[in-house]
Amino acid sequence: MANAKKSNTRRTFIQRSAIAGAAFLTTPSELLWGATNSNQKNEIDMTKNIKTKGYAAKDASGKLSPWEFERRPVGDDDILIDIKYASICHSDIHQEKGHWGEQVYPQVPGHEIVGVVAAVGKNVTKFKVGDRAGVGCMVDSCMECSSCKAGEEHFCDNGATKFTYGYPTDAEPTGITQGGYSDKLVVRDHFAVHIPNNITFEEAAPLLCAGITTYSPLMRAQFRVGDKVGVAGIGGLGHLAVKIAVAKGAEVYAFTTSEDKVADIKSWGVKEVIVVDEEFKNMQAYGKTLDYMISTIPYQFNVTPYVMCLKPGGTFTFVGMPEKSEITINNLMLAFARVNFNASLIGGIPETQEVVNYCADNGIRPSIEIINAEEINTAWDKVVNKEARYRYVIDAATF
Amino acid sequence: MANAKKSNTRRTFIQRSAIAGAAFLTTPSELLWGATNSNQKNEIDMTKNIKTKGYAAKDASGKLSPWEFERRPVGDDDILIDIKYASICHSDIHQEKGHWGEQVYPQVPGHEIVGVVAAVGKNVTKFKVGDRAGVGCMVDSCMECSSCKAGEEHFCDNGATKFTYGYPTDAEPTGITQGGYSDKLVVRDHFAVHIPNNITFEEAAPLLCAGITTYSPLMRAQFRVGDKVGVAGIGGLGHLAVKIAVAKGAEVYAFTTSEDKVADIKSWGVKEVIVVDEEFKNMQAYGKTLDYMISTIPYQFNVTPYVMCLKPGGTFTFVGMPEKSEITINNLMLAFARVNFNASLIGGIPETQEVVNYCADNGIRPSIEIINAEEINTAWDKVVNKEARYRYVIDAATF
Repeated sequence: MANAKKSNTRRTFIQRSAIAGAAFLTTPSELLWGATNSNQKNEIDMTKNIKTKGYAAKDASGKLSPWEFERRPVGDDDILIDIKYASICHSDIHQEKGHWGEQVYPQVPGHEIVGVVAAVGKNVTKFKVGDRAGVGCMVDSCMECSSCKAGEEHFCDNGATKFTYGYPTDAEPTGITQGGYSDKLVVRDHFAVHIPNNITFEEAAPLLCAGITTYSPLMRAQFRVGDKVGVAGIGGLGHLAVKIAVAKGAEVYAFTTSEDKVADIKSWGVKEVIVVDEEFKNMQAYGKTLDYMISTIPYQFNVTPYVMCLKPGGTFTFVGMPEKSEITINNLMLAFARVNFNASLIGGIPETQEVVNYCADNGIRPSIEIINAEEINTAWDKVVNKEARYRYVIDAATF
Repeated sequence: MANAKKSNTRRTFIQRSAIAGAAFLTTPSELLWGATNSNQKNEIDMTKNIKTKGYAAKDASGKLSPWEFERRPVGDDDILIDIKYASICHSDIHQEKGHWGEQVYPQVPGHEIVGVVAAVGKNVTKFKVGDRAGVGCMVDSCMECSSCKAGEEHFCDNGATKFTYGYPTDAEPTGITQGGYSDKLVVRDHFAVHIPNNITFEEAAPLLCAGITTYSPLMRAQFRVGDKVGVAGIGGLGHLAVKIAVAKGAEVYAFTTSEDKVADIKSWGVKEVIVVDEEFKNMQAYGKTLDYMISTIPYQFNVTPYVMCLKPGGTFTFVGMPEKSEITINNLMLAFARVNFNASLIGGIPETQEVVNYCADNGIRPSIEIINAEEINTAWDKVVNKEARYRYVIDAATF
């Protein structure tokens, strides 16, 4: 089902691109970043709020429903994106259900967003109308502190990082940032990245969170070609972690609790798939074997058997954020394992551009299933029930 | 009070050493390791169990009482130590109260043990009768695996590390290893270290656990002279961490909840003492300032404000082992802090010798209070109530 939809959409996209290409591809920049037309004028009233249609959580029930709302006018440093696709991240579910803290509703989730630039503010040089653009987990920061200047806008020293949805802001008519499960987005230009021509919109979307969230710690781990890298939890994030680590030359060991994912995972080039049993018996053979491990498991879980798979001196990175963001560790185990434990958030804008380019250029594609807006609630249930294979991507034309 | 007792004992020791020196100091080895007499014969029956007097926990109440028991005969690779002093570690209390798991009783705690070698097995070359010797947290391991051969006997690959008390073993008449709150100890020679002449027995005792447990991760942290090192929890372990880090050239920031420790801590050469308030308000000024931090807090506590004091990329090492050995971490905080979190157990035998020598040679002395055996229970209560200043050392002559 997914493949049929995907193939169809990809074909349609390629056809459209060909037409667009014939019409607009005139400069190297345009070759790289896609069809643009710098002569094209903004066709919207730049002083007015942007009417937007989307799906919002109205309460902590975890059920979304259609909602029409307004975004701020396109400011001098902003771009307006006509959203083409937005994909579903487990974080969306956690946040809207209030697992990480009380929320303001209605709230539109979504931080894996791709589309076409429809208008640009007068100061914008990064994008032109018609450019292909993507937005991830954040939409603003101070841009002046040393972290922001170092391309780590998610660690803004002034605490001015605005995350893509649910974040209080006077700038937005609804009082909070509103995410990508919608048809339009106004965002400060710096916080959008270019989507190269050699990847489809729908396959690029998951890179904006799942991609960068796994790519960033994997790169920081500085593993060498042939190093043994473990990936725990093979869902939206984990399956991209596997594909990126394989592409970067690691010998990848994938740990999953879903027997029926084994064939898929093997097809991505891993060394081994370990189907974790309830008593972790089949993990014992991997004690002290891995150089590095990344866990994308978005729940509280028994960390010990995973950590014990690392060599002494190895590093275990946690990118899944469980309820309350709390993880309990057996300290004595950590001492015996001699493993460094850390957690990683997302990645900065330059690195987000890097992962998008890297995946586009190296044939790394998320495994996706395209859905319509009305299927979001069903898809959320499937994500929670570990039935996603592996990322649901919402067709924004259906909002 | 402590000082009076200590000074008196030190003076007595120096007098005794002078006499011993005149009589026995004939070789470089003896100059280094103390008075020995290689002609001296074992004056015990090497085939018989060793009658021992000590203080034991009889149940999980946390109350100790006198107990007479037997240790195994002195084997070919063993030495018999006439214990002079044993100091009190918070771990003793945790373990005997069953905080880390169910225990076998009667059980004699104590893993900071110093004394004089009274007998040696026929294979022993490391010690001679009359040598000054110390024993820490472990008394045996396989000695053949790569970890043991690398001097990391506490990480024995064959799981054969025997910890000093409460560890099941057929070799001991009581079925478990029995610790240092007693007058005699039989131990495999490799697991005893030499106590140099230039440190008193009673001041050497705390180095065998508190010393090595803080020294080992501090050395592994490889901080440079002038680096900012935080020490959280200034008790038995913490006060030694402070002194060692200061001696190694760090700019030390000590975090304590005990206002009345400030003057002591300042006298040890720290840069600053931070008296942590309940809401952690006065820690905020230290956000992202430290290169490294070691926590010796032996309870569950809110790790976040401490971790937030580290620079991104810094390392936080946990050596205090709370009940159930569990520590709960806010993962999101860890991601924002970009800090590496690890735990450290103790250290191997070569490194234990190293810390003893380093402290002896560099004037690093634990701050101690000598007590009699009958004061142990009171002392335990004081340790739990944070009233120890900073290590209680039991005079083994009072068992």
